[in-house]
Amino acid sequence: MTKRIAIYDTTLRDGAQGEGISFSSAAKLRLAKRLDEFGVDYIEGGYAASNPKDMAFFQDIKKAKLTHARVAAFGSTRRANTLVTEDVGTKALIEADTSVVTIFGKSWRFHVKEVLRVSEDENRRMISDTVRFLKRHKKEVIYDAEHFFDGYKDSSEHALSTLKAAKEAGADMLVLCDTNGGTLPYDVHTMTQEVVKAFGSSVGIHTHNDSELAVANSIAAVCAGAVHVQGTINGYGERCGNANLCSIIPGLILKLGCDCLKKGSLKMLTDVSLFVDEMANVRPNPKAAYVGESAFAHKAGMHVDAIRKATQSFEHIEPESVGNERRILVSELSGASNVFLKAIEMGVSLDKSSPEVKEILRELERLEKNGYEFEAAEGSFKMLIQKVLKAHKPFFDLEGFRVIVEKRHKDEPCISEATIKLIVKGETELTVGEGDGPVDALNSALRQALTRFYPGINEVFLTDYRVRILDPEEATAAKTRVLIESSDGAKTWGTVGVSGNIIEASWEALVDSVEYKLFLDEEKKKKRSK
Amino acid sequence: MTKRIAIYDTTLRDGAQGEGISFSSAAKLRLAKRLDEFGVDYIEGGYAASNPKDMAFFQDIKKAKLTHARVAAFGSTRRANTLVTEDVGTKALIEADTSVVTIFGKSWRFHVKEVLRVSEDENRRMISDTVRFLKRHKKEVIYDAEHFFDGYKDSSEHALSTLKAAKEAGADMLVLCDTNGGTLPYDVHTMTQEVVKAFGSSVGIHTHNDSELAVANSIAAVCAGAVHVQGTINGYGERCGNANLCSIIPGLILKLGCDCLKKGSLKMLTDVSLFVDEMANVRPNPKAAYVGESAFAHKAGMHVDAIRKATQSFEHIEPESVGNERRILVSELSGASNVFLKAIEMGVSLDKSSPEVKEILRELERLEKNGYEFEAAEGSFKMLIQKVLKAHKPFFDLEGFRVIVEKRHKDEPCISEATIKLIVKGETELTVGEGDGPVDALNSALRQALTRFYPGINEVFLTDYRVRILDPEEATAAKTRVLIESSDGAKTWGTVGVSGNIIEASWEALVDSVEYKLFLDEEKKKKRSK
Repeated sequence: MTKRIAIYDTTLRDGAQGEGISFSSAAKLRLAKRLDEFGVDYIEGGYAASNPKDMAFFQDIKKAKLTHARVAAFGSTRRANTLVTEDVGTKALIEADTSVVTIFGKSWRFHVKEVLRVSEDENRRMISDTVRFLKRHKKEVIYDAEHFFDGYKDSSEHALSTLKAAKEAGADMLVLCDTNGGTLPYDVHTMTQEVVKAFGSSVGIHTHNDSELAVANSIAAVCAGAVHVQGTINGYGERCGNANLCSIIPGLILKLGCDCLKKGSLKMLTDVSLFVDEMANVRPNPKAAYVGESAFAHKAGMHVDAIRKATQSFEHIEPESVGNERRILVSELSGASNVFLKAIEMGVSLDKSSPEVKEILRELERLEKNGYEFEAAEGSFKMLIQKVLKAHKPFFDLEGFRVIVEKRHKDEPCISEATIKLIVKGETELTVGEGDGPVDALNSALRQALTRFYPGINEVFLTDYRVRILDPEEATAAKTRVLIESSDGAKTWGTVGVSGNIIEASWEALVDSVEYKLFLDEEKKKKRSK
Repeated sequence: MTKRIAIYDTTLRDGAQGEGISFSSAAKLRLAKRLDEFGVDYIEGGYAASNPKDMAFFQDIKKAKLTHARVAAFGSTRRANTLVTEDVGTKALIEADTSVVTIFGKSWRFHVKEVLRVSEDENRRMISDTVRFLKRHKKEVIYDAEHFFDGYKDSSEHALSTLKAAKEAGADMLVLCDTNGGTLPYDVHTMTQEVVKAFGSSVGIHTHNDSELAVANSIAAVCAGAVHVQGTINGYGERCGNANLCSIIPGLILKLGCDCLKKGSLKMLTDVSLFVDEMANVRPNPKAAYVGESAFAHKAGMHVDAIRKATQSFEHIEPESVGNERRILVSELSGASNVFLKAIEMGVSLDKSSPEVKEILRELERLEKNGYEFEAAEGSFKMLIQKVLKAHKPFFDLEGFRVIVEKRHKDEPCISEATIKLIVKGETELTVGEGDGPVDALNSALRQALTRFYPGINEVFLTDYRVRILDPEEATAAKTRVLIESSDGAKTWGTVGVSGNIIEASWEALVDSVEYKLFLDEEKKKKRSK
């Protein structure tokens, strides 16, 4: 029988504690809906009573009618020496009106003494009173045993006595927390086994990544009998982050044969990961296990050859099983194999030992020495191949441009204006554009000049713009590399420009982006007319 | 007795396979020297014969006279059906003239059959011939058993027979490789134990992070008896990266009590991590375990209170033990505690419940809603506190500026020119500056205007400039956030600007940077005159 593991997502609460992470109310709602579709079992929505934004979320989410996930409100045990019926925090947990309530309590004697400053008995009463009260209100109660492993190492007897207090008061799940992320997998395994032996299998795990072991610790706990895993999408969270559900879930399903999520939804993993990054306005980690852009990217010439022979060689799972895909990279180290495969991807047939492949490699090397990087700029790379193959006829010629940004008074907004002079199909076009900033103004002027000849470019919009100052060590002057990401709704592509001047680098990337779009349209037209 | 674990660094070879990673020859040499100082036992310098750059490195490094580390050249076993004495690769390994040679060979029947296309006997001969030949040339020979764990799962008998071939031919170390990064810690532990039982303790481990388990797998192997760990600084490497030495080394020393590196050099860890990122021109991962900027950063109000009570609560180790430091973050979630601690850091004394603290929180909230982020912009945050406390008198007033970027012909470089009008100490200054780009030109004009009044600003230089387009979902128009990092040689600080216009956002960050420098100088003067 396959083992069912409940997935408890705390991206919206513990994840939002991560440096640079903050979700708007609208974003929280969209995220919850997406996590529900994905099939997580619990969504921890926030801290009851911490701030009005979280309380508003609990109201809004009721109207959203989730189909699978249960929403949990998070809070602590009642305060010391207070009646639970009069405790503000506990009241807020009831007011949140969720079917599940998660509370954390203290497992470590050191904390009971130094942070709470109460007796061990009072600490246990704080736990049992709160759990009992919540059960009386018909809540599903999840008990997070904070600092459990540190507490257990200090005194297993004390740590277990706090779990006993929660269990006997009716807690539905005892979650062992590695709050400061310092425990090793071997210890997590042993201690979880002890807890399962003592209290049965309603045991969960909550880990942090301070030792880069959060995923391993979660898996170790499941192997020891835990049936509930708490974590965040992309490992968001304070300090080094919480346990990364994007690595744990495929591990559990594909490697341990566990039953998680809804049937078939593992394929949504990569999209869910990207969506959460987008909502949090965080640049996705390309090296992320399973879901990263580089997770199935192959660079070294030798390996690429091997990959063609047998994908198992350097891929531990099928990229498609988690909704990701294989990528062949272009770079200094790449042999002719890579250029060859890339050309095939583009529908160009090349001979691996042809002079063209060698020339492309030479040109790549020259540009990379000058600071260009094509790994995220497939649009520019493909235009480069076209140029080397002499298959490229420029869609327009630049005569010149001028950009002016002016602030006339400290209280007035800046104005940006760009003028461009181009020759398109033999005609001279002189246009002027305004914009929010200089690149926007240039972009606007460029479109005006081209739209009459190539109406397709009106579909293109810029989705990202990144700037990197290159290490001046290697160059006589610091260079700026601009990466632009564009989309026409159907396709997305990256282009790159490098210059000592940010405007010129942006211009280069902009031109490649537009040219690539025109190239795509031309290819489409050719196909249709065949 | 504490267990000695050898650290084998392959940042320069396997690390350089990572997407976006490439080292110049000068950088490789500097890195090797730094790793030697740090005390790693082996530095894998590159692929013998792969390219002339790697061979040149082996020549150069001999002159560098490392004090501790041994340099290893990397290559494969001889080709199939070739005499080892006539094998080009093996010859190159000798020509590299290093004291250590690492070769990889095949452990997995599938690979022997499908990739090499030789008999199992010939594969074992390829291993033993090459090892024996290298031993005859007095090399220390490290044998990397590629795909060992996959091979073992397929046929333990076959996998062990390949190790036996290497061992009997004289290999000094048998390294078990999880080449595609798919193995779980439990399996690594069991299989490593079997190998140690069969061949004794000269066993090493080499893992990849495709399942986010590379650190756990390395630690599991050490617990099972391995004495040699291969990895890269910051986990550079193909796909999801190699095992991250920056997480493994402190885990081994601080948590397992192993003996690694030179005595006392663990304190260099954070600096080494940053240095390697700098050489590779990679933005450091703030969430990295142990060495990340956020690894000991505390944000949520409640936790910050707890941290003050007991640092153990949310820190699994002393940040100083790895050369890192504690940071208190400023953000939406932060309570008065954070602002309070930050103010203390700045030498301002505030009452935690004072109206000033509340006003700072309100102003922070307003700015963060508008896209500002102060977590990496301490300079701007400190200027904000000064402004709220009315302690800030502006060092100058802006009247206006104009920036022109012009490209007169497609083959001519862009020119950038900025004019600025300021009032400084009652005098109107009108200056013009040129630069590599518009921000550089603005910076130059600003300095010219101020230098007569505040000569200290000539010490400031910009060390980084980052641009982020904010998610347009929340705003009517896309906003640009610019983060500038400045240094005066002694101190480094970040400042932030936000605007729809990149030039205006840059201007804001630039002004904060200059003002913060002038503020620091003024504080210094005050202290001296006391």
